[in-house]
Amino acid sequence: MTEPFERIAVVGLGLIGGSLLQGLAHGGHSVVGVDVDPATIAAAVHSGAEVAGDTATAVRGADLVVLAVPLPDLPDAIRSVAPHLGPKAILTDVGTLKSPVHALVRELAPGAQFIGGHPLAGTEHSGWGAADPLMFRDAPWALTLESDADLEAWLRLASLICNLGARPVPTSAAEQDTAVARVIGLPHVLAEVLALAGLAGGALGLSLAAGSYTSGSRVARTRPELVATWCDGNPGLVRALDDVIERLTATRAELTAGGSVLPLARAGYDARIGWEQRAFEPVELPARTTDLLAHGASGGWITAVLVGSSGAARLLGMRPSAA
Amino acid sequence: MTEPFERIAVVGLGLIGGSLLQGLAHGGHSVVGVDVDPATIAAAVHSGAEVAGDTATAVRGADLVVLAVPLPDLPDAIRSVAPHLGPKAILTDVGTLKSPVHALVRELAPGAQFIGGHPLAGTEHSGWGAADPLMFRDAPWALTLESDADLEAWLRLASLICNLGARPVPTSAAEQDTAVARVIGLPHVLAEVLALAGLAGGALGLSLAAGSYTSGSRVARTRPELVATWCDGNPGLVRALDDVIERLTATRAELTAGGSVLPLARAGYDARIGWEQRAFEPVELPARTTDLLAHGASGGWITAVLVGSSGAARLLGMRPSAA
Repeated sequence: MTEPFERIAVVGLGLIGGSLLQGLAHGGHSVVGVDVDPATIAAAVHSGAEVAGDTATAVRGADLVVLAVPLPDLPDAIRSVAPHLGPKAILTDVGTLKSPVHALVRELAPGAQFIGGHPLAGTEHSGWGAADPLMFRDAPWALTLESDADLEAWLRLASLICNLGARPVPTSAAEQDTAVARVIGLPHVLAEVLALAGLAGGALGLSLAAGSYTSGSRVARTRPELVATWCDGNPGLVRALDDVIERLTATRAELTAGGSVLPLARAGYDARIGWEQRAFEPVELPARTTDLLAHGASGGWITAVLVGSSGAARLLGMRPSAA
Repeated sequence: MTEPFERIAVVGLGLIGGSLLQGLAHGGHSVVGVDVDPATIAAAVHSGAEVAGDTATAVRGADLVVLAVPLPDLPDAIRSVAPHLGPKAILTDVGTLKSPVHALVRELAPGAQFIGGHPLAGTEHSGWGAADPLMFRDAPWALTLESDADLEAWLRLASLICNLGARPVPTSAAEQDTAVARVIGLPHVLAEVLALAGLAGGALGLSLAAGSYTSGSRVARTRPELVATWCDGNPGLVRALDDVIERLTATRAELTAGGSVLPLARAGYDARIGWEQRAFEPVELPARTTDLLAHGASGGWITAVLVGSSGAARLLGMRPSAA
C-alpha cells in the first residue's frame, strides 16, 4: 500500500463534499470538514462529523485538502486555502471540468501540489442532507495526471479513491474535458434543446409526449447554473456540437430526399447496446505515467495501488476486453 | 352514451393489438382477434381469447375493425380486410404516424369509414406475451377527425377509448404528425445521434459517461425498424430538425464567443418543469368538429361522450388550466 494520508480536510460540505467526508470517516480516515454555511455546519456537527471553525484550522496540518465547492466559489476557496497548505500537502477538487481548475490553481496557489479530480456521482438533490457515504461505490473518478506530475502523490490519491470503492481513471485535464464534453455537456445541451423544441411545437405535442420525450429531456431539470459550469469554456463541447450538427444535417438531407433514418437508427442502436454490454478484464500495470495515461485513454481504471517490499509500486486495474 | 359496438375485430395480436383485445374483453365487449403467426394464435387461445381462423371470419360482422400490425405490413392487412368490411363498419388503426395510413386506406380501401388512432402506450417489450389489458389507462390516444369526417362514428370510437381508461385527443392527421415529429421522432433521432457522438469520442468518454448520457441515449435501444416507421416520410420532422439545428448552431456561436449556455439552460429548465407541472381542468364541449379540433390543439382530451334523451351528444373533457 502507498503511504496513507494522516489528516484530510474537505472544504465545502454539500452533496459531494459531505458524501466524501462521511465516506472517508467510515473508512477509518482522519478527516475534518469546513463550510461557510452555519446551517450546514450545524447539521454536520449534529451527525457526528468533525468540523473546523475556519478554513485555516481545517487546512493546517492536513496532508490532503479537497476543494468541494461550486466552480463560481472556487477562486475564493483557493485563496483561503493557499496560505495554510503544508509543503507536502496535496490539493485536489471534485469539479466537472479540469482545465479551468488547473488554471485557477496555477494562478492563485502556484506552489500547490494539485491533482484534479472528478467523481462521476451525484443525485438530483443537493446539500449535506442528501450526502451518502456510499455515493462513490463503483463511480468512475477522473484523476488528472499531467506529464510533469509527481507520480507518487497521484498514486497516494488514487489509492485513497480505491478505498472509497470508486474507480480512479488516469487522464490529463485536457483529455478528460474533451471526453466529458460528449458524455456530460452534450447530453445536457441536447436535453435543453429537446425541451424547447417540444414546447415550440405547441400544446397538442406536449399532450402526446411520451417516454422518449420524458427521458430525452430529463436532465433539463438540472439547475441551469450547474449546467453552465459543466459546459462553458470547454472547447471540446464546440467540437461535439459540430459533430452533432453535421449528423443532424445529414439526417435532414436524407429525409428530404425521401430516404430513411434506418441507417442512423441502426448505428445508434449498435452504439448504445455496445456501450451497455462492454466487458472488462483485470490487468496489472507498471507505475509509469505514460502507461497509466494510455490505460485511462483505453477506457480502463485502477482498482488497487500496491507497494512491494522494495518500495516499487505496481497497480491493478480493469480494462475493456477485446471484443 | 353513444351506441356501443356489437362486435370488434382486432387484426394483429402483438403488444398493442393484444393489449387492446384483452382490455376490450375485460371491459365486457365482444371482441375477436386474428394474427398471421401460429405461435401468437396459440398463446392467445391458450389465455382464453377468442381468435378467428382467418381475417375474413374476424372482420365479417364486425362493426369496428382495428388494424394493429406494423406499418410495413399494413398494406397487406388493409387489402385482406377491405372486401369483408360491412357497410357501416368503422376502420381504425394504432400506428404512430397518421397521414401515411390515411393515404394507404384511401388507396386500398376507398369505401372504408376510417378514423386514424394512435395510442401513446407501450413498453420496451413486444408481442402477445407482453400484452397488458391495463396498458391504455391514462394514455393519450390521438384520434383523427378530418373536417369532412362522420362525427357520429368518431364519437362512438372516442367513447370506446374512454371506456379503456385512455384519453382520446381530437386532431387531424396532419396536425398529429407535426406534433409527434417533435415529441417522438425528434427525441429518437437525438438519442441515436447522442449515442454515436459519445462513441465517436472514444473509450475514455464511454467510461466517464453517467446519468445524462444514459437517459439521453436510452431510446436508441429501440428496434431501428420501428424508429424508421416513426420518422420517415414526416415533413414535420424536417422542420423540427431545422429548429434543433438552429438552436445548436446558436449555442455553438455563443460558446465560441466566450459566452454561456446559461440562457439556454434556463429556458430549457423552464420548458421541462412547465411541462411536468401542467395542470388541467374539466370542461364541457359541444359535439362539433371545429370545437373538438380546437380542444385537441389546445392540449385537451375527452373523458366521456354523453347522449341526452333528445339524442344530442355532448362531451366532457379536460383542458390545460390557464396558468
